[in-house]
Amino acid sequence: MATPSSTVTPPLKDELDIVIPTIRNLDFLEMWRPFFQQYHLIIVQDGDPSKVIKVPEGFDYELYNRNDINRILGPKASCISFKDSACRCFGYMVSKKKYIYTIDDDCFVAKDPTGKDINALQQHINNLLSPSTPFFFNTLYDPYREGADFVRGYPFSLREGVPTAVSHGLWLNIPDYDAPTQLVKPLERNSRYVDAVMTIPKGTLFPMCGMNLAFDRDLIGPAMYFGLMGDGQPIGRYDDMWAGWCIKVICDHLGLGVKTGLPYIWHSKASNPFVNLKKEYKGIYWQEELIPFFQQVTLPKECTTVQKCYLELSKQVKAKLGKVDEYFLKLSDAMVTWIEAWDELNASGVVVAPKANGPAK
Amino acid sequence: MATPSSTVTPPLKDELDIVIPTIRNLDFLEMWRPFFQQYHLIIVQDGDPSKVIKVPEGFDYELYNRNDINRILGPKASCISFKDSACRCFGYMVSKKKYIYTIDDDCFVAKDPTGKDINALQQHINNLLSPSTPFFFNTLYDPYREGADFVRGYPFSLREGVPTAVSHGLWLNIPDYDAPTQLVKPLERNSRYVDAVMTIPKGTLFPMCGMNLAFDRDLIGPAMYFGLMGDGQPIGRYDDMWAGWCIKVICDHLGLGVKTGLPYIWHSKASNPFVNLKKEYKGIYWQEELIPFFQQVTLPKECTTVQKCYLELSKQVKAKLGKVDEYFLKLSDAMVTWIEAWDELNASGVVVAPKANGPAK
Repeated sequence: MATPSSTVTPPLKDELDIVIPTIRNLDFLEMWRPFFQQYHLIIVQDGDPSKVIKVPEGFDYELYNRNDINRILGPKASCISFKDSACRCFGYMVSKKKYIYTIDDDCFVAKDPTGKDINALQQHINNLLSPSTPFFFNTLYDPYREGADFVRGYPFSLREGVPTAVSHGLWLNIPDYDAPTQLVKPLERNSRYVDAVMTIPKGTLFPMCGMNLAFDRDLIGPAMYFGLMGDGQPIGRYDDMWAGWCIKVICDHLGLGVKTGLPYIWHSKASNPFVNLKKEYKGIYWQEELIPFFQQVTLPKECTTVQKCYLELSKQVKAKLGKVDEYFLKLSDAMVTWIEAWDELNASGVVVAPKANGPAK
Repeated sequence: MATPSSTVTPPLKDELDIVIPTIRNLDFLEMWRPFFQQYHLIIVQDGDPSKVIKVPEGFDYELYNRNDINRILGPKASCISFKDSACRCFGYMVSKKKYIYTIDDDCFVAKDPTGKDINALQQHINNLLSPSTPFFFNTLYDPYREGADFVRGYPFSLREGVPTAVSHGLWLNIPDYDAPTQLVKPLERNSRYVDAVMTIPKGTLFPMCGMNLAFDRDLIGPAMYFGLMGDGQPIGRYDDMWAGWCIKVICDHLGLGVKTGLPYIWHSKASNPFVNLKKEYKGIYWQEELIPFFQQVTLPKECTTVQKCYLELSKQVKAKLGKVDEYFLKLSDAMVTWIEAWDELNASGVVVAPKANGPAK
């Protein structure tokens, strides 16, 4: 049986799932036990489905491998990447909770400047439960934080803010660099603890990293698709970036907020820059056309739900990015498949049976 | 004679003026001596011109009072505010240097978290001399800072950045709150040192505070007009805000950068919230129409210089804000007068004779 590390019920205990994509035993969870143990985990096993993934005792989890994904989604499983951590978005789809926190299995608990362990999940929850301010910049950062407020000159009509859909956390130690930067600066480590959370302004795109990310499924879930990466695809390592550009234009359209900054996790090891370069090089090139595309995307007024926005976006991807590479035609189709699968699994009453369940489920 | 506090020549020593608006003796400079003494000061004396302002020994300065302003600008002196720190912009106009740092006389040297005195001017210079990144958000903040870089997913074509026109610094201790917030939170102090500098994205407005501000006169000087405030005017405390909205839309149009964050100064005392409320209340109300105005302003392609942009902006102010209050008709005219005066004083070969000069000039 799970032994709660504390008798205090943590916030959103029954409203949040932690999604972890992995190919190995989840020993890293030991370190997170004080913060994660009372939450439910959704583990998405990538690679060889016959491999047994060990989960430390006492965690409440469900686990899906490729066979499960194929069984549950049938032909629509084609929209879920294989041999790439992009597969994590399957976990977002099968969750029944309002909030998702997703973390990589090489992310450890970081310490704040006073030496205290950072409860990353708690900070993400704070970020998600307080409003965002995308329409005007506040120079003292998050105005809802204790000890801060809106500064002189901030319009009063904008001080209520808007609902926060996404909370993007950062990384101490190994920074999230692309392969060229990894190659040029192999020894660079991020040791700067910036004690701030801020809203990314409306109309501004950002590089969303999936390593330490939380979001509100009800508000933005159907747009959190990590695309087609890995096995059989021409690129990798752009899964979270793609999702980040899509969610940002949709959040901007729907009047939702995206925050970045705290919390930090400790990113333990750099991935191989040579392998990364192979995965990234087409993305690095294509991106120069993708960014202008996303910067000019406008969604019509009729797009009043995330699904409608996302389907409209898929059309524009096909129409405007298809000429960059035929990969984007395939991606556009996969975006539609993703929405169909999402709606199927998330219709009221659908129960998904995972292969493996943790003891305390 | 001035005694340099160090034999090392500080950066931009002969290319930067420090502009200080004041009504009192400048004892606060004692604290800044190690950082300011080798720079030239432009002191703009507000209020009674017969009052003698004492400047600590050893500083190299020129001082202008209202009589000087009237003498130098003649009828155009009407564009320079009286009995309001907005008068500081006269100092920007008479400077012959490329860079300006302006600071209030109630701003002291702050300490960083290690207890070291912060050389605010040095940090502003770093900010101004490194590029800005207004077109895409970098989640690890200023990518040009030591120990940081562009993160994965940042388009390579945007990594050169653009020239930085403005560096907006922050305040520890007394935060820059409006009167209503001061009244509601009289005891709130800013004790959070956020170790970051960032570019305010293109298309995003911010509340620019004039307390601790640096800029490149050559790039944006003619737009740094602090408007009509104080004596004979219906509002106060919106001088820097007005300038901030104007410079931001012009920087966005011209492809220049605006940074905010470090450095901090120690803001020693809160101004009287009751007095502030009287100065601000119309601004608080008008602002609700000003922000949408500045958010939708577009400048035509023909506006290729700051002056052209500013004159175009003055026309749009007259056309669109005149109906908010006739004050904006007067302000629009003053914007034009300001540019005329700027161009007159900054035509090549014009020498302005201030009333008083420091010993080391």
